[in-house]
Amino acid sequence: MTAVRHATLFTERDPLVLASGATLGPVEVAFATYGELSPARDNAVFVAHALTGDALAHEWWASMVGPGGPVDTDRFFVVCPNLLGGCRGTTGPSSVDPATGEPYGLDFPLISVADLVAVHRALLAHLGIERLFAGVGGSLGGMQLLQWAADAPGQLGRAVLVAASARLTPQNIALSHVARRAIRQDPAGGLALARMLAHITYVSDAGLEAKFGRARRGAPGEPGKEETLETDFEVESYLDHQGEVFVDRFDPLSYLYLTRLLDYFEPFADPGFAARAAGTRFRLISFDSDWRFGTAHSELIERNLRAAGAEVDRHEVPSPWGHDSFLLDPPGYLDLVRTFLSQE
Amino acid sequence: MTAVRHATLFTERDPLVLASGATLGPVEVAFATYGELSPARDNAVFVAHALTGDALAHEWWASMVGPGGPVDTDRFFVVCPNLLGGCRGTTGPSSVDPATGEPYGLDFPLISVADLVAVHRALLAHLGIERLFAGVGGSLGGMQLLQWAADAPGQLGRAVLVAASARLTPQNIALSHVARRAIRQDPAGGLALARMLAHITYVSDAGLEAKFGRARRGAPGEPGKEETLETDFEVESYLDHQGEVFVDRFDPLSYLYLTRLLDYFEPFADPGFAARAAGTRFRLISFDSDWRFGTAHSELIERNLRAAGAEVDRHEVPSPWGHDSFLLDPPGYLDLVRTFLSQE
Repeated sequence: MTAVRHATLFTERDPLVLASGATLGPVEVAFATYGELSPARDNAVFVAHALTGDALAHEWWASMVGPGGPVDTDRFFVVCPNLLGGCRGTTGPSSVDPATGEPYGLDFPLISVADLVAVHRALLAHLGIERLFAGVGGSLGGMQLLQWAADAPGQLGRAVLVAASARLTPQNIALSHVARRAIRQDPAGGLALARMLAHITYVSDAGLEAKFGRARRGAPGEPGKEETLETDFEVESYLDHQGEVFVDRFDPLSYLYLTRLLDYFEPFADPGFAARAAGTRFRLISFDSDWRFGTAHSELIERNLRAAGAEVDRHEVPSPWGHDSFLLDPPGYLDLVRTFLSQE
Repeated sequence: MTAVRHATLFTERDPLVLASGATLGPVEVAFATYGELSPARDNAVFVAHALTGDALAHEWWASMVGPGGPVDTDRFFVVCPNLLGGCRGTTGPSSVDPATGEPYGLDFPLISVADLVAVHRALLAHLGIERLFAGVGGSLGGMQLLQWAADAPGQLGRAVLVAASARLTPQNIALSHVARRAIRQDPAGGLALARMLAHITYVSDAGLEAKFGRARRGAPGEPGKEETLETDFEVESYLDHQGEVFVDRFDPLSYLYLTRLLDYFEPFADPGFAARAAGTRFRLISFDSDWRFGTAHSELIERNLRAAGAEVDRHEVPSPWGHDSFLLDPPGYLDLVRTFLSQE
C-alpha cells in the first residue's frame, strides 16, 4: 500500500517566496512515491495532478501509473505531490495561518503556476533528486511541467503535456468566473454548482448523449412519468451526484485559488519563456472532443516551443470523452505516453 | 409609440386547460401589435419571442420588425405577446393565485410549449384573426411555431424557425439544470448566475475572443495590475453586468418554468406530429457558431418535416456570434426572412 507522506519544506522563518514577492510559511507538502530510486538517481518521473487531484496517482490515474503501466513503477521512481493551494494535505487557503492561529481563508496569497513548481522542486531537493527523467501531467498538471521546463532549464528531461493550455480563452475564464461567483455567494452550495458546471465542460455533448441521452429516472419506458422542475433526467441526477461527492472531498477556497491561477497563466507572454523551456523534450497530446483545452491549446504550445528550437511532437487522439479523456484510455493515448518514456 | 396592451383570455370560471390536464385561470396576456390588419384579415404575422423576451418586438428585435424591415410593419399586421409563464405582463408563477390571494410560486403548474400556443391562439381569436400569414421566431420562439403548425393545421401559413430545437441534448439540459439549481439555492443571486452561464452559451468562444480576448480592466497596457480572485478580466466584468441587469428585469420562477419546458419539448417523439404540422411551409435557419441549438438541431427538424411531406428549406448562416446571432444581423440572415415572407 502506498501511503501519503508529509514533508515541511518551508518554515515561518524560512518561508517560500512567491512569484508575487509575498512569502508563505510554513509550507507542508503531502506526497506519494512509487517504485525505487535507482542508485544513479536517474529514473525519477514526476506526476503532476490537475485541478482537484491528490498525491495518490495510483488511484486517480490507475491506467497511467503502476507496475507495467505507461508510467511504469517497476522501472521508474514516481513522485506525486498534492499541489500548493490544494486541500489534500499540502498547504492551502484552509491551512492555519501562523500569524493568527486561524485558517488563512481569503487572506491566503494569490499563487501562480510558478509557485506550484517552486514547491515541487523543493520536494525533489528534499528527496535528494537533482534531475527528473520525465514529468507527466494532464490539464493543470501539464501546465506545471511547461513552467518547470522554463524555471529550471535542464532539470526536466522530457515532459508529456496532456490536454494542457498556455492561454485560457475568455470562454474558459468566463466559465470559471461563474463557478467562483457561485462559491463566493454560498461556499458549499456554490462548490457543488461549480463542480457540476465544470463537469459539463469536461465531457462532450456527444459523450453525454451516448451515456445518458434524454433518459429519465425510473424504469425505462415507464409511462406517465410526471414532469418536474427538480431532478428528472438521468444527466441531472448524475451531475447532482458529482456535485455532492465533490463537496465532501474538496475545499471551496482551494477551488477559488486554483481556478484563478489557471486564468492568469500565460507563459508565452514572456518573450524569453520558450527559449528557457527548450532544453526539455516535449510530447503534447490533445483530444478531439475536448472543448475546454482542446487541440488549439496544444497547437499554441507547440508553435511557441518549436519557434524556440525545442524538440516537440504533438498528437491529437480521437475520443468522445472530452477533456476528461486524459484520465481515461481512449485508443492510442496510453501508448503515446509509454513510447515517449521508452525512447532513448 | 407602440404600447403594451392587456387582455384577459381565460377566467377562473372558464380556465385554460393545460396539456397536462391541470387548469389555470385567470390568464391575462400582455401583447403589442404593429401595423394594420387588412380588410381581408390575411396579413397577420406572429412574432414569437424566446426565453426572456417580451411583447415589444420593435425593441428587442429592431433589425427584424419595423417599417420596411424583414417583418415589414408597413405590410403586415404583427402580433407579439409575452408568453405564458413569463414575467413581462402575461400570467406566470409570480402572478396571484386566486385560490390563495398570494403569488403561485412553485404551486404554478408545469406548462408545455403546447400551452404557450394555446394561449397565443386564444389571443388571435380575441383579435378576430383566424389565419396567420406567417410566424417568425428564434430559439423557443421557433419551437412554439413548430408546435403551432401541428396543433392547428392550416392556421399558420408559413413559419420561420431560427436557431430552434425539437430535442434538447443532455448538455443543453445539464446546463439548464445547473442554472435552476443555482436559482433554487438563492433566487436573486442564482438568477444572476443562471444568466451569466446562459450568456456564455449564447455566444461562441471565438466571439468572446474577438470582443474581449484576455483584456483586463483599467487602462490598456497598464503595468503591474494586481491579480485578484474577484472580477478582473473584461469578460468577467461584462458577465457581471449581464447578470445584474437581468435580475432587475426577470423573475427567477419564470426562469425555472420556461427552461424546464424547453427540456421536455420533444415533439417528434409523437409519430403523428410531423404529419399534422406539414400544412405549414417552413424555413429553418441556424448559425454555424451556435453551440446551444446549432445546425444539427435544425437538421433534425428538417428531416422529420420532410419525411412527412412538408415544404421546408434550411439554411446555415455563418456568424461568429453563436446562438445570439438570431437577434443580430449576420450577412444573409435578415434577407432569408424577408424573401421567405415575400414569396407567393
